Amino acid sequence: MLLHPSAMVGLVVEMREKGMGLPELVEELLKYHRMDEHFSKGRILGSMCTEPHPVARAAHMLFIEANLGNPRLYRGTASMEKEVIGDLGRLMGLDEPAGYILSGGTEANITALYLAKKKTGGRYVVYPKSAHFSIQKAIKLLDLKPLPVELTEEYVMDVDHLRKRLEEVSPGRLAAAVAVAGSTELGTVDPVDEISSALPPGVPLHVDAAFGGFVLPFLPFRGKYNFEVDGVTSMTVDPHKMGLSTIPSGALLLRGFEDFKRIAVSSPYLTEPFAYTLAGTRASAAVAATWAVMNHLGREGYGRVVEECMENTRFLDRGMTELGFPHIIEPVINVLASGTADPEGLQRRLEDAGWYVSKVCKPPALRFVLMPHVKRRHLEEFLKDFEALIQT
Amino acid sequence: MLLHPSAMVGLVVEMREKGMGLPELVEELLKYHRMDEHFSKGRILGSMCTEPHPVARAAHMLFIEANLGNPRLYRGTASMEKEVIGDLGRLMGLDEPAGYILSGGTEANITALYLAKKKTGGRYVVYPKSAHFSIQKAIKLLDLKPLPVELTEEYVMDVDHLRKRLEEVSPGRLAAAVAVAGSTELGTVDPVDEISSALPPGVPLHVDAAFGGFVLPFLPFRGKYNFEVDGVTSMTVDPHKMGLSTIPSGALLLRGFEDFKRIAVSSPYLTEPFAYTLAGTRASAAVAATWAVMNHLGREGYGRVVEECMENTRFLDRGMTELGFPHIIEPVINVLASGTADPEGLQRRLEDAGWYVSKVCKPPALRFVLMPHVKRRHLEEFLKDFEALIQT
Repeated sequence: MLLHPSAMVGLVVEMREKGMGLPELVEELLKYHRMDEHFSKGRILGSMCTEPHPVARAAHMLFIEANLGNPRLYRGTASMEKEVIGDLGRLMGLDEPAGYILSGGTEANITALYLAKKKTGGRYVVYPKSAHFSIQKAIKLLDLKPLPVELTEEYVMDVDHLRKRLEEVSPGRLAAAVAVAGSTELGTVDPVDEISSALPPGVPLHVDAAFGGFVLPFLPFRGKYNFEVDGVTSMTVDPHKMGLSTIPSGALLLRGFEDFKRIAVSSPYLTEPFAYTLAGTRASAAVAATWAVMNHLGREGYGRVVEECMENTRFLDRGMTELGFPHIIEPVINVLASGTADPEGLQRRLEDAGWYVSKVCKPPALRFVLMPHVKRRHLEEFLKDFEALIQT
Repeated sequence: MLLHPSAMVGLVVEMREKGMGLPELVEELLKYHRMDEHFSKGRILGSMCTEPHPVARAAHMLFIEANLGNPRLYRGTASMEKEVIGDLGRLMGLDEPAGYILSGGTEANITALYLAKKKTGGRYVVYPKSAHFSIQKAIKLLDLKPLPVELTEEYVMDVDHLRKRLEEVSPGRLAAAVAVAGSTELGTVDPVDEISSALPPGVPLHVDAAFGGFVLPFLPFRGKYNFEVDGVTSMTVDPHKMGLSTIPSGALLLRGFEDFKRIAVSSPYLTEPFAYTLAGTRASAAVAATWAVMNHLGREGYGRVVEECMENTRFLDRGMTELGFPHIIEPVINVLASGTADPEGLQRRLEDAGWYVSKVCKPPALRFVLMPHVKRRHLEEFLKDFEALIQT
């Protein structure tokens, strides 16, 4: 593996002796700010994050000090976390869920597999090849053994192949199964009920709905993907993606608190005797942000947001199809993959033109995520630019 | 283990259908805000966090969208991270460090031990009994084996006992050694150079300076605790503690980037081909906050902050001694442990009186962290209240 130029090596700088005055500091900060891309410009078409809602931003600022690593000091924020976890549980078909708002989907997925490993004593994890790479991270970190499952022609987990995989190991050696509700690359939703039925009893089934969790409940989607399926033991749902909250906000939901005790560590000098999350200090301003935006929008508000995103997804799909880049699958959620032989080349040329799209390797495609910051006018502009680009 | 009442179980709530209007939302947020404690009131005397500096707060808000999990979109923030890592490296005696700003000291410590495990293939970790409980978390998460080392009468790692511990396992089975520079309970600094000399060659030595990293460089402290000791391979330094930045900001520093490649995971749909951190989406507003406050204060500014904290530490120490609660050790940094037979009872009674102090179990003591939000006037008030409390 070559060292990528982005290797994080600090610059050789000597920390300044005297501080920088405010006017210069502001100027410098704005210089760096201009170097960043910003969602509001509508040019980021391949990210699963978006502009946080203004009420999320305001609440984040108000609660900037909050740290639920030390919950007795932050009883208000702790109450908001309980409400948010309760809300998300109901949204995912479960009363009285246990859970936490963590730093994001990756920490939530890692924690889910950590809990499953401790519960079962098993080492093997079955997951669809469409799973997010955080599952690879978790497997590597936790010394688990991967049993990837092939996808069907619809790019969801192939339950027949899952059954074959399951025959390869004795049930006692399984740590967990993972299914995806709203996959990163194509936005597909695995057949969670069929997967659950195929599993030996007692195998934890984690559903990664980091992205889909704030989309699927607001669509006329008929598949079962959440706690309504009895076998589902845990779920990841990220408020900082389609929930329009601030980073860092990724929820892990469980059927009961019991499992968290397996990973508890004594925390003698804090206000609580045990710590149950991977992080110590927790950036809990985002809990307040999530509470604020969820209460401000309500189901109705998210419904409108999702509807607009889906309209934009279909609009872009039609435009790309007309230009000769038909979708790989009919979009299930607001993720569109438009087939092309050379996604990498197009991605690079688009970036030169100031458009940030993503790519899928297998099958080769340009990948778009139609987040709320992407408006119809941005897409019209994009299609014009893209048409010009492919003709040169 | 009993289920603590703080078990995070969501409330049974149904997510609201219609959103809450702004006036009601603001009122509700302020209600929760009043339930939280706030550093500015000067009543939190046992936390290692503090009010973020105003420039950190402002920069955090300006860069609220930034996510270095997708660094090509955030070139400005990425540049700031490189500068901060460079600055922190120099502060810790190292040019051109590799590293990242992570979610906090715990993620940094976990990552350091993860890298060490991958590098050595070993499983055993030696660490002083004064190490932060994040080391226990890392050991549990990474399936490592603990070899705790006793403390001397000065409450630092006992190097003689370390040597005995090291005889218990063959060098090839060691994953890492951990030393602490500014321990959580007593603020002690382990003899890092002696520890380094006692280790077999090639054993990674991680120094947890999560707290001390922004204190020790600004004190006339003579011990060696950082990269100036050749054997030190990695360090944790938290800007969101004495660095006056916002949460989440904990730095992991390494001598070179090479080691990070051992934990790399392919990240096909992002703007970079590999991911090297545990988290995926990263809350990078705090990187900008750290950059801002470090540049605004400079060494001189931190020097003033630390000086005031140390003066307050000595002031409180004198006051507590006069009341019959002498320190366990002469404070090395701005952490004070005042001996008492019943820290728990006193802690509870103080909390009833609106004061948040912490405790040490062995030796029994009340524990204070004199952070920048704690002013002389708060301590005078505290001593008055404490005197009244112990006389009733």
